[in-house]
Amino acid sequence: MSEYKTMTKEELLTEQEQLLKRYNEYKAMGLKLDMSRGKPGKEQLDLSNDLNKISDYIEDGVDTRNYGLLDGIPSCKKLFADLMGVDTKNVIIGPNASLTLMFDYISQCYTHGAGDTPWCKQGEIKFLCPVPGYDRHFTILEYFGIKMINVAMTEQGPDMDAVEELVKDSTVKGMFCVPKYSNPQGITYSNEVVERIAALKPAAKDFRIIWDNAYCVHDIVDDGDELLNIFDVLGKYDNDDMVIEICSTSKITFPGAGVSALIASDNNIASIKKRLNAQTISYDKMNQLRHVRFFGDAQGVLNHMKKHAAILKPKFDIVVKHLNEELADKGIASWVEPKGGYFISLDVMNGCAKRVGELCKEAGVTLTSVGATYPYSYDPNDSNIRIAPSFPPVDELDLAAQILCVSVRLACIEKLVG
Amino acid sequence: MSEYKTMTKEELLTEQEQLLKRYNEYKAMGLKLDMSRGKPGKEQLDLSNDLNKISDYIEDGVDTRNYGLLDGIPSCKKLFADLMGVDTKNVIIGPNASLTLMFDYISQCYTHGAGDTPWCKQGEIKFLCPVPGYDRHFTILEYFGIKMINVAMTEQGPDMDAVEELVKDSTVKGMFCVPKYSNPQGITYSNEVVERIAALKPAAKDFRIIWDNAYCVHDIVDDGDELLNIFDVLGKYDNDDMVIEICSTSKITFPGAGVSALIASDNNIASIKKRLNAQTISYDKMNQLRHVRFFGDAQGVLNHMKKHAAILKPKFDIVVKHLNEELADKGIASWVEPKGGYFISLDVMNGCAKRVGELCKEAGVTLTSVGATYPYSYDPNDSNIRIAPSFPPVDELDLAAQILCVSVRLACIEKLVG
Repeated sequence: MSEYKTMTKEELLTEQEQLLKRYNEYKAMGLKLDMSRGKPGKEQLDLSNDLNKISDYIEDGVDTRNYGLLDGIPSCKKLFADLMGVDTKNVIIGPNASLTLMFDYISQCYTHGAGDTPWCKQGEIKFLCPVPGYDRHFTILEYFGIKMINVAMTEQGPDMDAVEELVKDSTVKGMFCVPKYSNPQGITYSNEVVERIAALKPAAKDFRIIWDNAYCVHDIVDDGDELLNIFDVLGKYDNDDMVIEICSTSKITFPGAGVSALIASDNNIASIKKRLNAQTISYDKMNQLRHVRFFGDAQGVLNHMKKHAAILKPKFDIVVKHLNEELADKGIASWVEPKGGYFISLDVMNGCAKRVGELCKEAGVTLTSVGATYPYSYDPNDSNIRIAPSFPPVDELDLAAQILCVSVRLACIEKLVG
Repeated sequence: MSEYKTMTKEELLTEQEQLLKRYNEYKAMGLKLDMSRGKPGKEQLDLSNDLNKISDYIEDGVDTRNYGLLDGIPSCKKLFADLMGVDTKNVIIGPNASLTLMFDYISQCYTHGAGDTPWCKQGEIKFLCPVPGYDRHFTILEYFGIKMINVAMTEQGPDMDAVEELVKDSTVKGMFCVPKYSNPQGITYSNEVVERIAALKPAAKDFRIIWDNAYCVHDIVDDGDELLNIFDVLGKYDNDDMVIEICSTSKITFPGAGVSALIASDNNIASIKKRLNAQTISYDKMNQLRHVRFFGDAQGVLNHMKKHAAILKPKFDIVVKHLNEELADKGIASWVEPKGGYFISLDVMNGCAKRVGELCKEAGVTLTSVGATYPYSYDPNDSNIRIAPSFPPVDELDLAAQILCVSVRLACIEKLVG
């Protein structure tokens, strides 16, 4: 097989004819396959069922059933502190969704500011968004009317030349990052990129980076990526207050009923607690205790993640296998094979992604809404597709990946033959 | 015994001497008694331990462990809808703390408005606060810089003449209400008051009432108070969008790990879901299912509340007994004996409440911070004391109530003898 761009129109039409035959066979199967969201599969959820077998809800004299302990029970704070390599005092345990911690922090900056003046009193403000990125980050920014500026991702992380230039604008107030196994590309920021982020000198004194470390322990291979702990570096540049780190057990225990955590400097913890004190009496401490008892310690979490990896690896493999077999040498698509996280990011020929989504849908395969990996759901190249292989069983994925590959090839041929 | 105001200075000094003797005996006991917060006692928490014995987390094909169902699982929505006498479509199940639902709704109005213009873009705005009231409501308003205006409580609810007059000011944007067994007085709004509230014609089109029905099923006697369902009346006045009702199981199952719910008109539900969609993927559905399985239906909740009443009634009784015995005929204090809720509100002679708090503290009894029942922690009469009898065991309450009564008498004598 050769690159599509070098093929004659006639060759392409023959190829199209063969592919359509396959495509129609798939279509006739009346499938309903879902690769749209980063949802753990049932087998993964079952790994944590024992979490609920706890019967004693008292710890260190604290009755977790009752009110109190705004920032979480000490043992749960310690669990996250150990896991993330920070001090317990810099941890706040949050609700079941880390998204809520991020929304609430942006909301806090909007109404009360991260410095002297609330963001809502500063006219138009902007955030940097490495792209492709996580749609729910963009949704938060859009909700608050914060203008989003795309920054290209490289294989090392965000294009730091661009970031360093953009932060000279004092209306640029922050950036959303998924520094490990980025959503959707699975790229882990290099040490140099983390260091350059920590060293930023933004014109805005109230510049904040949301460091969404959603996949901090989510390796799918033994030699997973290593991410530099940004809190070990920030001090050197007097930037401790610049970063708010977020993580959760959504993809460790239960997506709907896990525990989230926020990690921040002493100053930021104090200002967040001030809001929290008006917002709640405490998050669910019984659930915090369940997690502590289930894992024992940070090593317990890491051991548990090996079980997830054993389930996820074959799912990633089957998708990558088909991408390699069907798309590798055609010059119409590229992807990174990630060592962890929840996604495979596929870039197809410009102007073809939406059409791929349509073809997949017609054949019964749901992808993440094409475009959603960009702010305002607008992918300027119409090229990025996010594949979420975690939820379907392997046999379904096997089919879904084939349908995806055929759809990519068909969409590109349509584009080339015009 | 006679009214203190009719006694001579000499008689008062004799009385003081006797009381001081008792007071010092209490003090010498080195007690540490807490009547500060409306926390259920251990015996109450134990009533719900079986909540955690659920082992199957699938319902109607929905795996509650996973992502999804933004507004809650259908069966939990139905449970609350039945309990509160509304349609399921008008219910959103929230997080473990109803306080968060209230904070978030005010936050939503502040950043996005309840009409055309966000509250944060309208200059100074105001809220009406029936007093005495719940300190955490005031904390939310203070956090957002919303000016609080005191409205006196009557035995029927807020002084509606005052409310009707105040809402003619278009900068008055709302009111916080605890309509059943109000915090702290235990007053249930009369049908006439509920009707007049439903019929309000505020100058502000974006006027919102937070109807914090925290004690909706929290009777401690068999013939508990009946509260008119405001959603049955609002339509008559074309005011459906004016009220946001809130409730929770904090004082039904676990204060730290219950389930909250918000009840609102179709319009309000839609606008709240728009924010929610940016703020979370779902609240803790496993916990919702635990509650559904534990109670079965609304009647199950009511049956369960009888068990709470059996524990709480003797606690209220012992406090009321001492108030009656020691304070009834001295003309220095008044209170309402509530049929439910979590508090007894004690009004002492003007200018004496803070001193009562000091005396209690010195003798080892912690009351709710005196003044906290008023906005800005400022009780203009320095007269209101909130008693929370739920947490301590009866024998401790017995002592604490005696110390409180002696402290009230001493503080008033100090004031009278000058």
